[in-house]
Amino acid sequence: MTNTLYLPELREMLAENNAAELREFCEALHPARTAEFMEGLSAPEMWAVLRHADPQLRVQIFNFLDYEKQIEILQDADRAEIAQLVSDLPPDDRVDLLEEVNPEVVAELMPLLPVEERRDIQRLSSFPEDSAGAIMTTEFARLSENLSVRQALDEIGRQAEDLETIYYLYVVDTEDHLRGLVSARQLVSKIGKPDTKIGDIMERDLVTVNVLDDQEQVADKVAHYDLLAIPVVDDEWRLVGIITHDDVIDVMREEAEEDAYHRGAVHPLEKSYLETRLVTLTWKRGIWLAVLFFAALLTAVTLEHHEAVIAGIPWLVLFLPLIVSTGGNSGNQSATLIITALSAGDVRVNDWARIVRREFLMGLMLGGSLAAVGYLCALSVAPGYYDATVIPITILLVVVCGTLTGSLLPLLFRRMGLDPAMMSNPFVAGLIDLLGIIIYMNVSLLML
Amino acid sequence: MTNTLYLPELREMLAENNAAELREFCEALHPARTAEFMEGLSAPEMWAVLRHADPQLRVQIFNFLDYEKQIEILQDADRAEIAQLVSDLPPDDRVDLLEEVNPEVVAELMPLLPVEERRDIQRLSSFPEDSAGAIMTTEFARLSENLSVRQALDEIGRQAEDLETIYYLYVVDTEDHLRGLVSARQLVSKIGKPDTKIGDIMERDLVTVNVLDDQEQVADKVAHYDLLAIPVVDDEWRLVGIITHDDVIDVMREEAEEDAYHRGAVHPLEKSYLETRLVTLTWKRGIWLAVLFFAALLTAVTLEHHEAVIAGIPWLVLFLPLIVSTGGNSGNQSATLIITALSAGDVRVNDWARIVRREFLMGLMLGGSLAAVGYLCALSVAPGYYDATVIPITILLVVVCGTLTGSLLPLLFRRMGLDPAMMSNPFVAGLIDLLGIIIYMNVSLLML
Repeated sequence: MTNTLYLPELREMLAENNAAELREFCEALHPARTAEFMEGLSAPEMWAVLRHADPQLRVQIFNFLDYEKQIEILQDADRAEIAQLVSDLPPDDRVDLLEEVNPEVVAELMPLLPVEERRDIQRLSSFPEDSAGAIMTTEFARLSENLSVRQALDEIGRQAEDLETIYYLYVVDTEDHLRGLVSARQLVSKIGKPDTKIGDIMERDLVTVNVLDDQEQVADKVAHYDLLAIPVVDDEWRLVGIITHDDVIDVMREEAEEDAYHRGAVHPLEKSYLETRLVTLTWKRGIWLAVLFFAALLTAVTLEHHEAVIAGIPWLVLFLPLIVSTGGNSGNQSATLIITALSAGDVRVNDWARIVRREFLMGLMLGGSLAAVGYLCALSVAPGYYDATVIPITILLVVVCGTLTGSLLPLLFRRMGLDPAMMSNPFVAGLIDLLGIIIYMNVSLLML
Repeated sequence: MTNTLYLPELREMLAENNAAELREFCEALHPARTAEFMEGLSAPEMWAVLRHADPQLRVQIFNFLDYEKQIEILQDADRAEIAQLVSDLPPDDRVDLLEEVNPEVVAELMPLLPVEERRDIQRLSSFPEDSAGAIMTTEFARLSENLSVRQALDEIGRQAEDLETIYYLYVVDTEDHLRGLVSARQLVSKIGKPDTKIGDIMERDLVTVNVLDDQEQVADKVAHYDLLAIPVVDDEWRLVGIITHDDVIDVMREEAEEDAYHRGAVHPLEKSYLETRLVTLTWKRGIWLAVLFFAALLTAVTLEHHEAVIAGIPWLVLFLPLIVSTGGNSGNQSATLIITALSAGDVRVNDWARIVRREFLMGLMLGGSLAAVGYLCALSVAPGYYDATVIPITILLVVVCGTLTGSLLPLLFRRMGLDPAMMSNPFVAGLIDLLGIIIYMNVSLLML
């Protein structure tokens, strides 16, 4: 995946210490692409290249480097130079990064930072992980409502280089209470009337998030309202930061991956698959696999309890895996439907009665069709028409039980304040396996 | 979920035909929130309210209404008024919406639209679903590189109301070939030097997508480069549209949902869970459930083939569901890991040898631990130490087989140009169930 096209040239420039060419390399392309071309270099080589870019561009390219390389650079390069880089980094990225850096290095770096930035880092790192406060940035445009359009444009022109976004400008009073919002679009469209007051054009009905809101809620709001950035306020409605669209996209990716892991019964990884150590990976799977294994042991206990039934009617065994997997599949489907609908906001816990009715009816239709097929198959091995009916009856009951369990468990988890995606599917599968066997054995016991 | 707070007031205003108050209602809040307050109204009532907003605001509120209601309004309201609304809608949303509207209505509406918009609709609807062309908008700011910063700002000020974004301005030559990009940020930061030429400040190394690229690729690029919008070019590098960050967020949600459905073996829904008809829903699940059922029937066939083994050693049955589900769980985990890593770009098909090695080792570690527990359990029911070893040996083989199948199938699907998420998990589960039983029966046959 590494782009090695320019590596020899880059190494040659470094060997010759060719400042002009290295500078040109840094400036020629989009920072993300410059970072790609540097991928094959070691961390010290990367830093040797970056030192030739001016500070603002240096930070941009740095931000696109591989995360591990960023940490290496912060830990190994000259402290004073790194302090400069750290103080230029976007406040939200900076905090995440410093958490991964060796604490001793951080302790050495902190005194080299301007006092204001040091406080900013301390404040941002105090917010709980996955909260709005932990992903927000503190560099945004603040305006007073008394400014004119002309003054506002001049003001932003001055600050533009330091701000994460200039596309939404937040209007605050002297105590930082959020009063309104002006978009750069509004400002630019009023360029013909430069004396208009900000207070007269700003929007006052704002969509905000609280600094302690969960990042998933933040993403939902930004997506729903099609925002470029969302202001973060504290309990007193003071503006403490903003979260920009690119961070929201990152949150969405992260949450989607986390959900996928949960549904697959893997504890979410922190690094990529190939970068995660085998022992870690085994552990992250092993805990879940073990939980599911012990749950599955209950099926063995249940079967042992009904050993007489099986010994008496040996052909029942043939359908055992079929019945268990059909129940699991239908439960899994229901869980998927409800988890997806819950996270899209299409259903709520209060809709449970309607959901139960729908899932029950679907269970009847699906179970009924499969039962018909199952009956035909059973006829070929069972001793008679009556005996064979055990199979369709069991299939029908297991599928209905699967759809009901699969749909109700995620609702129950949500009701209890847990993430429905977190345990539902593996949990559902294990539970339905067990229920399937209990149903199968009892139907057989009653009928045969 | 409907906000009914203002419904009585709104209906009263409508009954009195109170234009001033209705107009104020439309203007007071964020358009998304205005739309929320209208949720309980019928489509004709909604339109009666919207008619009091000025056209630009009307379109914004309309865009936040429920999709079904939007379609109803388009179909039922006065054609001439609707033509005005349609011509104000963002070009990308408009095309999606018109595809859902009764074709006869569309045929009546089209002649009422300006010829340019009509062509735009025809062109956009010609692109394949899920391609960049199908989600792009054609309303964006075009500049010539000879303009000065001052001229560019004036120009954008004039166009701002009609454009979907003014934050990236695209520089094209006389034949619409994409030459560069200027961000509003750059423009505003040069406000002190208004005579600077656009050609001197524009970026020339641009990240673009082709009009036929898949929407998932588009989302990946926008996320990777942290863009607000990405230009869409044709094969001759002519700028034909742009895709904005909010559409990318929608694409990501859509793709994440689709993946979730695929992994849960449900054919993706077009509407929300509660809005989808039961018959449709049953069908979308039923096809997959049936496929998996027939696959599971193979387990019954396999067991019948080995009926003698089971009849001879009845305690083997107790471990049947345990072994099948443990294999399925470990395979499911591997498939989840590899599918997630593939879609995040962390692994490629070429990494297969490394993946196989890792999964094999993990299979040994996980299978080994579970085998040890399984042996202890088997001792309690098996007639002797030797007989009981069938269980740990089977568990070890099944888990290794599960990790290998689970990791290789998604790679195979990707290699064949199919979406790995599309069939892998249900497919994996079915296959491993079958393999598990074959392994179990053969180990028993060989050893006992």
